[in-house]
Amino acid sequence: MLPDDVQVVSVDDHVIEHARVWLDRLPARDADAAPRVVEGEGGRQMWKYEDRLLPTIGLNAVAGKDPRDFGVEPVRFDEMLPGCYDPVARVKDMDVDGVHAQMCFPSFPGFAGSTFLAAQDRALAGACVRAWNDFILDEWCAAAPGRFIPMVILPFWDVDASVAEIQRVAAKGAKAISFTESPHGIGLPSYHSGHWDPMLAAAQDAELPLCLHFGSGGVPAFAPDAPFAVAIALFATNAQFATVDLLLSPVFHAFPRLRVALSEGGIGWMPYVLERIDYVWERHRWYTGINTEVRPSDLFAGHIFGCFIEDAAGLALRDLIGVRSIMFESDYPHSDSNFPASREKLAGALASVPDDDARRIAEDNARELFRFFRTP
Amino acid sequence: MLPDDVQVVSVDDHVIEHARVWLDRLPARDADAAPRVVEGEGGRQMWKYEDRLLPTIGLNAVAGKDPRDFGVEPVRFDEMLPGCYDPVARVKDMDVDGVHAQMCFPSFPGFAGSTFLAAQDRALAGACVRAWNDFILDEWCAAAPGRFIPMVILPFWDVDASVAEIQRVAAKGAKAISFTESPHGIGLPSYHSGHWDPMLAAAQDAELPLCLHFGSGGVPAFAPDAPFAVAIALFATNAQFATVDLLLSPVFHAFPRLRVALSEGGIGWMPYVLERIDYVWERHRWYTGINTEVRPSDLFAGHIFGCFIEDAAGLALRDLIGVRSIMFESDYPHSDSNFPASREKLAGALASVPDDDARRIAEDNARELFRFFRTP
Repeated sequence: MLPDDVQVVSVDDHVIEHARVWLDRLPARDADAAPRVVEGEGGRQMWKYEDRLLPTIGLNAVAGKDPRDFGVEPVRFDEMLPGCYDPVARVKDMDVDGVHAQMCFPSFPGFAGSTFLAAQDRALAGACVRAWNDFILDEWCAAAPGRFIPMVILPFWDVDASVAEIQRVAAKGAKAISFTESPHGIGLPSYHSGHWDPMLAAAQDAELPLCLHFGSGGVPAFAPDAPFAVAIALFATNAQFATVDLLLSPVFHAFPRLRVALSEGGIGWMPYVLERIDYVWERHRWYTGINTEVRPSDLFAGHIFGCFIEDAAGLALRDLIGVRSIMFESDYPHSDSNFPASREKLAGALASVPDDDARRIAEDNARELFRFFRTP
Repeated sequence: MLPDDVQVVSVDDHVIEHARVWLDRLPARDADAAPRVVEGEGGRQMWKYEDRLLPTIGLNAVAGKDPRDFGVEPVRFDEMLPGCYDPVARVKDMDVDGVHAQMCFPSFPGFAGSTFLAAQDRALAGACVRAWNDFILDEWCAAAPGRFIPMVILPFWDVDASVAEIQRVAAKGAKAISFTESPHGIGLPSYHSGHWDPMLAAAQDAELPLCLHFGSGGVPAFAPDAPFAVAIALFATNAQFATVDLLLSPVFHAFPRLRVALSEGGIGWMPYVLERIDYVWERHRWYTGINTEVRPSDLFAGHIFGCFIEDAAGLALRDLIGVRSIMFESDYPHSDSNFPASREKLAGALASVPDDDARRIAEDNARELFRFFRTP
């Protein structure tokens, strides 16, 4: 079971950026193009960036609501819990929730910053990326030292600029990078192309794991007339894609110290996928140009890490996954979150798991992967 | 363990059509447009249909080969085991393999007949579908009664014609229909559209389960420069799509006696997907227009069936899937097959499974689903 002294570390949560994140950090001349909040129709608040209006999605700020009140409509800041956008209020909610530390993904920029990938002005977009990183490091995480794992985004349309940004933020204390689970899924060169090698080398050198949030490589291709619940239930197929794609690519052979966290997407599919990829490797390695020496499931261990909220299947087969590959996420303030009962639900899920394994899963694995150690 | 008296029934195998399947059955006037085998470059044999040249894929006829000799290049009939295209030779191979009965999917037509969907002459395409069905019923299955579960394809670009074909083949002894796992994935109306209702009603009335072979709704969207092994390892994500798509559609509410078999794709992902879809249903059923009364995992039981070749994860968690939902496949003569050791490998996989469960999985579930009972 979960020992009382475990500090639960969650590796997938979300910050809702307050309205002045970019206005506070960019030069005044960019104020008309930088991301800023405008009042829309019907009392709604929207983000405006260059000429694009980008709605907030209500589902991304539902912490504390009853599921009967969930919806995809935009919400106003004053309709959210302050913990969505205020780090001091967030820490209070974490205390209620029994979660000691969180790692927060961007909202307006997209999980991996792809909002900026679609920008007209790439110079401004690069400045926006750096501004978000300064916000998360200097404002959000700095408000509560030891309570947030600092994660950054990259100007990933430019590999050299991404290398420079990795070096800049590593020096400022960043511990992780949010990257896309499927570069080719969003129109960029694949993990097989070699295109990303300088960036992957820089991440490896800086000891910053790549965090691949589900949805960062696209939405599962559900039918246009299907309910959106179909896509929500299928997002873990993206994580399966990323796992197979990476394990059959040259990435971990070229960068053996690089590590990847699959952020949201569960763990219950992992035993099947590892068994399947080994089966395919056994039979198809001779003619497909993949590495013929290292069994993919051996490559998985120590390179790819997953996380869960509730996942009876994955916990039951945790030894097939590897207990050291499993972490916890609380997903605050998204619709999957168990806030304000995250620790209580986690303790229930771990009730029949030996204490040492429970401690690894709830705290130690995340602290070791992100080099985010307890302060004495 | 697997009792000696169990007759292993496989629910996913493949016939390689011999060169005269269509020429033998279509009027002579269609001989220049109907599917026929032509000699290609380098001694290869190809199918020609209308003006299209369609290569056979070597991987589809590798039974008996060493994986070091696998490849995607076309093969000649005289390079295959005769069991690929000759039902008498097939039964001999099944006897060696320890498999009492098989259900054989089409090869040239595509798993669900989509080669004919792309035809210029729809009247000829309809005749080609009926000819394949007559071939499989009157020639292939008739060559060895009790050894093949008769499965047919439909002219599914035309719902009324599909209804008529279901009624025609049901009267001739068909026991299953091969349909696409993702109609919208191949450019047709989705399972949510109502478009298929007359066909689904006819299948339900005729007690013919729909068999959705992985790949029948498209190939996983791997990067163009990724090895094909990535797609091979990911095909089960198609089966996950079909499961979620169907369970969150009106299909089983409208047709409660309709049953669906997922053909190839394993079972180890099912515990995760069922847990996930229930989780999503609990939180998102109120605003997404899905059924709010029936838990998706309850709808799964008795409506959706899976099969496996080797699947330690799925067998370990078989009680989370439901033992009555699990069947075996031998996948002869494709690259996943364990021929000539299918029964031996299956017995090994079931070694720690109680006899009653092993019997259900290896024989009884398939016999009951397809109403393919032992002959006295």
